[in-house]
Parts: sequence; structure tokens; C-alpha cells
Amino acid sequence: MKNFIKHDDWKIIEEGFHPEFNRISESIFSLGNGRKGGRGNFEEQYSGSSLQGNYLAGIYYPDKTRVGWWKNGYPEYFAKILNAANWIGINVNVDGEELDLAKMNIESFTRTVNMKEAVLCREFIASFLNGKKVKVSSKRFLSIVRPEVGAIKYTVEPLNFDGKITFTPYVDFDIKNEDSNYDEKFWIGENIENMGNEGYLTAYTKKTKFLVCSGMKYNVIADDKEHAVHITNESREKYIESSFTVNAKKGHKITLCKYGVNASSMYHAPTRLMSDAKETLNEAFDEGFDVLLNEHRDAWAKKWELSDIKIEGDVAAQQGIRFNIFQLNQTYTGDDERLNVGPKGFTGEKYGGTTYWDTEAYCLPFFLSTTPQKVSRNLLVYRYKHLQKAIENAEKLGFKNGAALYPMVTINGEECHNEWEITFEEIHRNGAIANAIRNYINYTGDKDYLAPYGFEVLLAISRFWAQRVNWSGQKQKYVMLGVTGPNEYENNVNNNWHTNNMAVWTLKYTLEAIDFVKKEHPEIYAEACLKTGFNEVEETARWREIIEKMYFPYDEERDIYLQQDGFMDKDLEPAETIEPDERPISHNWSWDRILRSPYIKQADVLQSLFWFADDYEKTDIERHFDFYEPLTVHESSLSPCVHSILAASIGRPEKAYEMYLRTARLDLDDYNSDTADGLHITSMGGTWMSFVMGLGGMRVRNGKIFFNPILPDGWKGYTFRINFRNCNFKVDVRQSEIFITNLSEQQTEICVFDKDEVIKEHSTVTIKL
Amino acid sequence: MKNFIKHDDWKIIEEGFHPEFNRISESIFSLGNGRKGGRGNFEEQYSGSSLQGNYLAGIYYPDKTRVGWWKNGYPEYFAKILNAANWIGINVNVDGEELDLAKMNIESFTRTVNMKEAVLCREFIASFLNGKKVKVSSKRFLSIVRPEVGAIKYTVEPLNFDGKITFTPYVDFDIKNEDSNYDEKFWIGENIENMGNEGYLTAYTKKTKFLVCSGMKYNVIADDKEHAVHITNESREKYIESSFTVNAKKGHKITLCKYGVNASSMYHAPTRLMSDAKETLNEAFDEGFDVLLNEHRDAWAKKWELSDIKIEGDVAAQQGIRFNIFQLNQTYTGDDERLNVGPKGFTGEKYGGTTYWDTEAYCLPFFLSTTPQKVSRNLLVYRYKHLQKAIENAEKLGFKNGAALYPMVTINGEECHNEWEITFEEIHRNGAIANAIRNYINYTGDKDYLAPYGFEVLLAISRFWAQRVNWSGQKQKYVMLGVTGPNEYENNVNNNWHTNNMAVWTLKYTLEAIDFVKKEHPEIYAEACLKTGFNEVEETARWREIIEKMYFPYDEERDIYLQQDGFMDKDLEPAETIEPDERPISHNWSWDRILRSPYIKQADVLQSLFWFADDYEKTDIERHFDFYEPLTVHESSLSPCVHSILAASIGRPEKAYEMYLRTARLDLDDYNSDTADGLHITSMGGTWMSFVMGLGGMRVRNGKIFFNPILPDGWKGYTFRINFRNCNFKVDVRQSEIFITNLSEQQTEICVFDKDEVIKEHSTVTIKL
Repeated sequence: MKNFIKHDDWKIIEEGFHPEFNRISESIFSLGNGRKGGRGNFEEQYSGSSLQGNYLAGIYYPDKTRVGWWKNGYPEYFAKILNAANWIGINVNVDGEELDLAKMNIESFTRTVNMKEAVLCREFIASFLNGKKVKVSSKRFLSIVRPEVGAIKYTVEPLNFDGKITFTPYVDFDIKNEDSNYDEKFWIGENIENMGNEGYLTAYTKKTKFLVCSGMKYNVIADDKEHAVHITNESREKYIESSFTVNAKKGHKITLCKYGVNASSMYHAPTRLMSDAKETLNEAFDEGFDVLLNEHRDAWAKKWELSDIKIEGDVAAQQGIRFNIFQLNQTYTGDDERLNVGPKGFTGEKYGGTTYWDTEAYCLPFFLSTTPQKVSRNLLVYRYKHLQKAIENAEKLGFKNGAALYPMVTINGEECHNEWEITFEEIHRNGAIANAIRNYINYTGDKDYLAPYGFEVLLAISRFWAQRVNWSGQKQKYVMLGVTGPNEYENNVNNNWHTNNMAVWTLKYTLEAIDFVKKEHPEIYAEACLKTGFNEVEETARWREIIEKMYFPYDEERDIYLQQDGFMDKDLEPAETIEPDERPISHNWSWDRILRSPYIKQADVLQSLFWFADDYEKTDIERHFDFYEPLTVHESSLSPCVHSILAASIGRPEKAYEMYLRTARLDLDDYNSDTADGLHITSMGGTWMSFVMGLGGMRVRNGKIFFNPILPDGWKGYTFRINFRNCNFKVDVRQSEIFITNLSEQQTEICVFDKDEVIKEHSTVTIKL
Repeated sequence: MKNFIKHDDWKIIEEGFHPEFNRISESIFSLGNGRKGGRGNFEEQYSGSSLQGNYLAGIYYPDKTRVGWWKNGYPEYFAKILNAANWIGINVNVDGEELDLAKMNIESFTRTVNMKEAVLCREFIASFLNGKKVKVSSKRFLSIVRPEVGAIKYTVEPLNFDGKITFTPYVDFDIKNEDSNYDEKFWIGENIENMGNEGYLTAYTKKTKFLVCSGMKYNVIADDKEHAVHITNESREKYIESSFTVNAKKGHKITLCKYGVNASSMYHAPTRLMSDAKETLNEAFDEGFDVLLNEHRDAWAKKWELSDIKIEGDVAAQQGIRFNIFQLNQTYTGDDERLNVGPKGFTGEKYGGTTYWDTEAYCLPFFLSTTPQKVSRNLLVYRYKHLQKAIENAEKLGFKNGAALYPMVTINGEECHNEWEITFEEIHRNGAIANAIRNYINYTGDKDYLAPYGFEVLLAISRFWAQRVNWSGQKQKYVMLGVTGPNEYENNVNNNWHTNNMAVWTLKYTLEAIDFVKKEHPEIYAEACLKTGFNEVEETARWREIIEKMYFPYDEERDIYLQQDGFMDKDLEPAETIEPDERPISHNWSWDRILRSPYIKQADVLQSLFWFADDYEKTDIERHFDFYEPLTVHESSLSPCVHSILAASIGRPEKAYEMYLRTARLDLDDYNSDTADGLHITSMGGTWMSFVMGLGGMRVRNGKIFFNPILPDGWKGYTFRINFRNCNFKVDVRQSEIFITNLSEQQTEICVFDKDEVIKEHSTVTIKL
């Protein structure tokens, strides 16, 4: 755990330069606007440890798989979001010395993100070995309004000398992914135009043939006036630069305003790409830095209006929750259903930047509650568009008749992951994708999504379950052999309760969906049946049989569902008995030892109890929580949130708060020593859930929203915002009252602490505690 | 399945050149002498598909592991026997054209190994595109008498022209392993001496620093006379060559006799290596080709005297069994306890050339029965010498107090393999290593091997089992969770019956061993206890408790032991219901589908029933065989032999013969389409077992040897030889009689068809059928 980020309500602040933490800071200070993003790298050269990273949404490369021992069925490649052009670069040379913080004496240094405005600032005073001292400040943002544009204001001031300063803004496309499996470069340069203060280059990706144009344009300001400079342009393969030298005077600032554009064939016809990019960039340039920044601020203000959470009395917690919300909003804006939320967003390369079940299980609730409905709908449509690929994935594993297995990891619908115990066996993900449909409809009321999108996805998943089970002659039940549950510290187990439960639930829900679509949209239903070759009578008969005769591992003595067959054969010592120096066990124990231990990486049985809490008594949940929680080591960033929510729901506020804290500052404090690789973006959705659904006790049942808030000790209060159907609420929790404000134009009914409350438009109800 | 090898009693013959099968032939025509070996490559240049391979026993490189997803506990490297200097090379240039069968018109071609003599011959007539025709013959062997020496007689005869022929014998050490993980070369050149008809070079291996000297010396014979030539020498890094040109006359043969040496720091002080190699080579050179060949033939005749199996009435079967015996004898000669039997011997690079449990389970019986006792004793000592490393392997997995886990794959005792389900979980191998001690003592009567070698190994393995089990509160039994049995088509199962059985058996046998060593060698025992920190009272008490309370999965209804927990939940359709185009399932099914199927790769429960057959009734074995055999797909080359032996033992001669046939010609007919990678050397031990223990029904009990022979339909008879304690037997099985000859100097008692027979020295008993 690190502690170098200064606490503040709205800002993330690194004060004093920490070269040993630079890669961590680069992750933490990442910027993104849903279409592109990049790490908090320096503009000027830096020869210390750094991962220079700039990423464009949807632009990936199928990197040839690296594997020790090939298993039949493995995918040939692992899709990676590509590290793309470095457009921020500005080399600065002062009287022949290169500006490089790794080689200078640093007097002061601050790196700050103002989350309210989504602007990254840096300011430092440093001197060269020859004693010349400069003050540098930079301000950078990626416009949330013009998603292809970014802008930088970069100022150098000589503090104790007059001299020549050469600025070399550049765009470098000769970029490699640090995690390239075979050390290969994936970009091939195409065209270059580089003249005066404006330059562009295009490059395309090997195999996938995405074409990208990155460009820059700049002007120079000295003493608050546009300053004419003599420019030299140079270009080489995949690289353009432009240089000018200024006679700088002590105490006088030279400011370079660099505007960047990154446009891709995702959004432009390849033949028009460079001209479109030029047009976009010139429009931005003509507006100027301040206009761009103002519109950007305004747009962010609207995002915060819908999603902010305010905590009073705990700055660290305040900063933590805002950081999570900020990053989620930087990563996904929901205007393109081809995009999704990668585990690291635009902040690093680990996990390939692709889509996991994390989106459905951990991020969807945040977007449902804080963004317009189309945003979360697009997350669902993403999977609908991948349905054919999911069917092909299942076919590769021997399934037939339109059964679909959604991939563990993907970017275009094809499976990318190659660990048999995950890729082939962690099939509960299929249930998570079905459950997202239920979750979306339950929240929004948009049941028509079933006709036919939701229905077709559910049908294909149900077909998978129906083929994946087999009849056990001995048990006289259907069983599901050889699976890995959400708890990845068990592999290839039989009858993982959560997976069996998701299977049966999917079958039931698909039957309901059929009833609805058949009745409400008979033509769409008929068409979908034709398209999918659905034999309703035969197939649903088998589903009903499976629903009726599914086997669920269960321990009579304790009256609990068992995580899997044989779980009670383990040595059930609680996790607190593990020696502290052996934690996390994933770093200290061999894999076989982890597997045969009882320790649980993340919620498994409890995942189902969270999702289907309404099907269980509170005492059921308590019993299972008390059995499984002590065995859970929470070694996934996705783990504590579910435990936090369940703990809150069964009246264990301390536990709920403890679990909430584990996620909220995970990256800011580098809790797991892996923030250098990038931020845990999808687990940030879990943080939000554990706040709003855990502490806030928010639930939606039958079209009504419920709140059951608790206030952690030491907090004065907190406020969160919720977008629900046509209403927007502000929930303000204090020590002795709760205020719920209806910010919309219509009266609505909510339920607080199991009591219905009617709230008129633009008014507040107060619940005394 | 290929069919291009001509059937013959003693020879392996390829008639007509099959470039498409060249890599297969190169494997099949491999030569070896226990210390070195090489594939059946051509001496002259060949630009077609080929794997040039020459290997030296014990010379390995720890190649950096390639892995998709790292698991804690994985080894850093995979040890590979290195492809070493090509010493056989002779470039031949005829009037400016390079001799290269890939570019010539081939009129006739024969490649032959005479297994009786271990000599590889080749003869071809081919013409260049310019019409010039040559006849070439070569004869090559690796001396079994002088293990560092090889010799080649290479003759070229111009058939229709007079012209200049340039010969360039060379030694090339610029060699790469084809399976190098990162395309790296592992040899670094050191010294070169190259003058006249004699040249040497030394190279050492990166990291492991093995030093090797390879050299050549040659003379030329024309018209049966030594022919003086003008020699030009050239050298470059890791390469020496020597050229001379001969004015060749139509119909006159030019013969090059090239002698090679390969000496290594395994057997020589590095500082003396080159001078030792020179001395060895010059001695051989001075003897001359014919003398070397004669002593080599004589030594091979003695090997065959002890190990030959003769079949009458089935040439294909005859060739098959001799090929298996020949290759085993080429691979391991047992005079160096640092060496072992790699799965591919000296015939290819797959599996790294290292040691698996195959040696103990499949090869030891062959060496016990056909070679002097010290040979099999050295196989055991090999593991004794690795005991400390096996203890370290176990420590890496969290075991303590001198518990040992022998590696799945090794060359120096350290684990090399990196699949968690194998490396960490396929722990029955530990039992196989313990069982080899029992097997060796049972066969040889050398019980003193226990003091202290056998005892120390057994103790460390017992300590492993005692820590690997855990107490199941639910079952009130000891269980063993998360293992992979010999049937690798199941991973991470609980309570694999064979593994539990091996564990309990090891504990029992170790208790017996303690009693023996304590009583017969009290001082050695006391010393061993001190060295190992053995607390006899406490540790054996725990062992006894485990022996008493071990859980064994069992099906009451069928009265069979279950391969593992949950086995009866599978869909138990017999393997014959699998569509033929889906066989082998390892090529056609995804791994998850294989895992949840009931199909068995190789004997698992049946492995124990084979090893401990005397503990079971014949009806027990029948019942288990009838349950498991139909589910077995035999997709390991090691599978059919155990089934063959069990089938024979329960009176199923057709099944025994069917299973025997699957192994006997596996490589000659390229049954599994993988012979190109190298021969299945260790499975050849299984072939021998299925012959002698299956068809021949040989067993050893309480110091007496038993035979129960059956004669397959269509065979006139067969003869095999057995070395047992101080006796040597010839067993001659005919349709209506069996003749057993005692070839030794003393009377002995044997048992045939459960009837005791006394055989006087040098005499034969006849059993009428």
C-alpha cells in the first residue's frame, strides 16, 4: 500500500516527484473521454521508468497467443487494444540540454487531476546540472465534447537565465505494446503530411487493418501574445516533428498550445480519414484552448450532476468514491454499441483492454443509475451484436443448434483467453450476460428489449445450458461437470452451485421472455423462431425437465448450499488462520495448494444470493454469509463489493463499511501493488455498487425503487444521485435524518426502510431516524 | 498410419525415396549407443524437409519457460537435451553441381538399418539435371564399444562420366534446437583446430557450461587403395570443414571413411577435453573401419543374446518387437547412473529429452529382464541422487520436513514442466518411483538396496503423502484433493483411487522397509534417521492412521473402485459410441469436453490392479477391466500395454493380442502421425512388457519366476529370453508345447501354468499343452 497521493475532495494530487512510483502515477493520472485515453505521461522527454500509453477505443490487434502447452479449442490470438500514437510529446531543449526530469534537480513538482473538470495539470521547477533553472507548467485534457481532440498548454519560464529554448512537438506512431507477445510492432505507417505548425500521419494495424490518423497543430504565445517562430519540419517512418527555437528571457513565459487529433476508420471512411482529421483539428484550433476547455468543463459538470457522490466528514473516502466515478465516466460514454468497458480502460495494457463479464456484473448498475438509458442499453446491444460469434465459440467446443457461449475475454465477440480452466469452464459468465438483461429490464422497465434482442440472446444461452448438463444415473438428477465458478481458486469442479443456479434461472427467465414476446410481439416472435430454428415445444420441454431435476449441492447439517461437490471434504479453517506473511495466497502459495484449500477468491455462492436476494429469506443469506465470508480472501478487486452489499442487507454495517473501504481507494493507495499496470476500472463499478446498494441500500423491485441507507461511523453524511426511469433523485443521508429529493417534473413513489413514500415533483421528503 | 517400411525379420527397410515421409524415416532410422545418438539424416546436403539431429547424453540446456498465464510454483525453465554438432556431414560436389537428393532424379534408393548389427546403410543411384549419374552408398554406425566414436564409409561412383568430385567433410556446431522456445541458439563456440584430414572444435552451452569437443578425421580410398589428396581446410565460428577434389573415372569408386568423436565434460576434465578427444579419435582411426565395425557387431550380438524375441509366422510382428528392443538398447546402456531414458531417446527433440515416470513404470521391467542387474540398479540410483532436488520441489509447493515430490519431467532432479494440472497434481508419479524400488527388489532379491538408498527415498515419499492428505470432517476419512491420475483426461479430481492406493501402499511398504533396515543394517538405519531427522514413533503413527482411515471411492452396486469422486455422475457411454471421425478425441474435442467425458486416456484404476494384481482376485480384475476397458480410448502410447497384460491374465487372449499390436508397430507404421517428432522410446518398454508379461505371462513372486504363455492365432511360435537372478532362460512357446531352457550353470525352479518345474543347468523342460 502506497500513501503518496494527497487527500482532497475533488483533486488527485501528487506533491513532490516520486520517480519510484511514476508508473503508478501514470495510471492514476490517466485521462479518457470514452473514445480515447492515455496515461498521465509527461509531455517532455523522460528517461526514467515510464509506460508511455495512448489508446483508441476499439482499435485492437489479434496478437498471436503465447502458450506453454496447447489445448484443443484454444483461440489463436489474444486481442489487445493497441498502444497508439504518442500525440502529447513535446521535446524541450534549453541551450543544448534536454529537459528530462530524470536528469535534473527538482525543486518542486505537482501533478494534479481536477476530477470536476477532467484536466491534468503539472507544474515543476527544476534545474539542469549547469544550474539553469526553469519553471514548467502544463495543462492537458481530452475533450469530452469533441472526442477526437485533445489539447495541451505547455509553458516554460527561464528563472535564472536568458537563453535559447527549442521546442519540438511531435507525433510518434512508432509505438509498441509493452505486452506484445513476440515483441512485435503492430502498426504500419502509411501517409505523412508535415508542414509548418501542422502535421499528420496515418498508420494501419497489421491483420485488422484499422486505419488511424493522428495529427497536431500548434501555436506559440510569449508575453500573452501570439509569437511568430521559424519552423523546421522533419519526418521519418511513423514519425513527424516540428521544431522552433525561441530566445527566452529570464522571467518571461513561453507557451506552446498543442492540439491533437486521433481519428480512426471506426468513424471515418478510410479515404477521407486524413481530410476529416484535418478538418476536426482545424476547427478545434480555431476555437482555441480556452473555448475548448470551457465546453469540456460544462459537459463534465453535467456528468457530475447525474453521478456525483458527496461524503461529508471523510476526505479520503470522498476522494476515493469520486475517483471511481470519474474513471468510469472517462472510460465509457455509451454512444457507440461497439465499445465496452475494459478492465483497465485506457490506463494500461494488462488484460488486453478487452471485455470480461465484469461489465455485466459490476459496471452495468452504475451506468443504469447515473446515465441516460441508452448508455446501458448499448452495453446490452454490444452482446447482442456478438451473438453469432458466441454461437461460433460454443461450436468450437462441440455445442450445436445455436447454443451460445459468450467469451471470457473478447473484443469482437471471439474468445481470446487461453487457460482451459477459465476459457472453457468459467461458464457462469453466460448467466451473467443473461442476468444483465433481467437487470436492465427490471431497472428501466424497457421490457420490449426482449423483442427480439433479449429473447435471442436468452434463447442461445438457454440452449447452451441445456446441452452443458448431463444426466447422472447415480444421482437421478441433471449435473454440470467440469466448471469454474466466479471463485477462480477452484477449477474444474462438479456442480458449482452458482453456475447450476444461473443455468436454471436462465431457463426459467427465458420461458418468461418467450411468454412475453409471443404475446406482445407475435410477429417478432415468429420471425425470431424462424431465424433461430427454435422448436419451442421440444426445447422448452427439455428446459422444464432440467429446471425440475437440476442437482444442487447442499449440506443438510448446516442448511447451506455448497459451492461445489466435495466442498465439505476440505480442511475448513477460516482465512484468518493463514499467516499474514502468506497473504495474498495467490502470491505465496502454489496453485495446487490454493485449489485444495477452502479459500475463496471472490463471491461465488454469495454472488447468486446477491443477484437473487429476493428469492431468499434474510436468515438464509445470513447463514450462507457466515459460512462463506470467513473463508473468503478477497484476492480479486471484484470481491469485496458483493460482500459489502450483503453485509449491509443483513444488518452488519461494520462489515459493510470494511468491505467498502477495500475497494474505494484500491488504486489511489495501490492496495494490491499492481496499479502501475493500469487502473482497476471495472472494479470501480463494484465500488459504486457497494456504496449505493450497500451503504445506500438501493434496490429496484417491480418498478419501484427502495432505499435502506446506513451511515458509517464518523461520517457526517453523504449524498448520492440516482437516475431512475423518468425521475432523478438526490438521496441525502445524515445522522438523524434522510432527505430524499425528487428532482424531476413528476410525482413519484419510493420506498424507504420498507415504508412507501410519495414525493412530489421538485420536492423533498424527510425521514427521521 | 503409413505403410512404407518394408517388412523383414532383422532389417528396417525404406525402398524408394519418400521425401514426404523423410522426417518420419529420420526418426525410424536413428542410431544410438547410450551415450550419443542421432537421427537417420543424410551425410550429403539435403534441401528437402529434414530435422538434422545429433544428441549427447546428459548435455542439456534450461530453456526459459514459455507460458500463457503464469501460476505460482511454475519452474523457470524446461530442460532440453541439446541438438549438438552435426559430425556426419559430407558435402559432395560433382563437376560444380551439389549432390542433393531433393534436386536430382532418383533412380533407386534404399535406406536400411540392420538391427542385428546396429548399422545404417543407404544406397542410391541418382542423376543431376545435366544427366551425370552417380551411385552412392553409405554405411554408418555409432560404436557401442567406444561410446564417443562413430564411423562412416561413404562411396561415390560416377556411372556415366569422368569428372571432378569435391568432397567436403565437415563438423558443424552452429546448431539450434528446433523447439527452442525463443529461437535462441544454446551453443557458444570456443576453440578450433583444423588441419589436413583432422579437425576439432569445442563449444560450450550457455548457462549450464557443458563443454563438448567434436572432431573428425578421414581417409580416402580409391580402387581399394589409400588415395592421397590435396586438402584445403576452412573454419569459421562453430564450424570446420576440409575439402579435396578427386578426378573420378566412370565406374571407379571413391570412398571416404570419416571417423567422428564427440566427447564432453560429463566424462573429461575440460582442460583435457580436446586432447582426450584427439586420442580417442586417433585410436579409432588407426584401427580402421572394419575393425571398429567388427567389435561393434560382436557387442551387439551379446545384447541380442540376452534380449531377443523371435516370432515365427508373422514377419510384421517380428520386425515390430525387435525394433522396440533395438531402440531401448540404443537409448540406455546403464553404465552411468546420471543418465536415464527420455521419451524420445536420441531420436528427436519433443518432450525435451528428459525423464518422466515412464522409466519406472514402463522401462524398468525390460532392463531388469534383459540386462545385468547394475543397469536397472542405476535407474534407481538416478532417483536417489535426485532426492535432495525432489525435496526442494516439494518445498516449493509448501511441503516441509523432508517430504519429496519427484518431478514430472526432469533432467537434473528439478521440475521442468509447467502445466499446473500435471506438474503440481499428477503426483501418482511419486508412487511409481517408490514402486520401482519394490519391483527391483522383488525381481533381483537385492533387498540391501534399501540400506539406505531405497529407505531414504521411501521415507521422503511417505512424508509427502502424509502431508498431502487431509482429514475430511464429513467423511471421517483421509482424503486427497486436487490430483491428476495417470489418466490425464481428468484434472484436479478428488480422491483418484490409484493415487490414494499408491499413497497407502507406499506408507505400508516404507514401514516394511524400516523393519528390514533397522534389523539387518542397524547402523545404516541410525545414520539415515539422523540425516533425515526421522522421528520414527510420531511419523509412523500418523502413517498407520492414514493407512487405516484412507478413503477410497467405491461403487457398491457394481462392486468397483471408482477412478475418482463423482465418476458415476458421468454419462457412461462406451468409447465405441464415439464417431470414428472424432477419434482421437484429443485432436477433435475441446479440452473441457474431454474432461467431463468418461473417457480414459490410459490405465488408471487398472494401473494399480496391474501393479498389485496379487492383492486381488481374478474376478475383481475382470470386473474392473470390464468396467474401465470400454471407456478407455488408449490415446497415450503408454496405454495398451497394461490392458494387454491384464487381458492376458484374465483369459482374454484376443484382447491381449489386439492391445499388443497397437504398441508393437506404433512407430514403424507411424500409427499416431507423430513419429516425425521422434520415436516413442519409453512406450517401447511397454511393448516389451505386453509381450513378455502379457503373452508370456511372466511374473515374479517371492523369488520365483512364473510363466503363463498364450500363443496368438496364426503364430507358429515365439521365443524370448529372460535374465532372472543368476539364471538365464529361453522360453519357447509353440502351438502344442512350451520349451523352457535353463541356460545357466545351476539348477533352478520355475512355475509354469501354476505348476512348479525344476530345470537342471543347461537343460530344457517341455510342457505339453
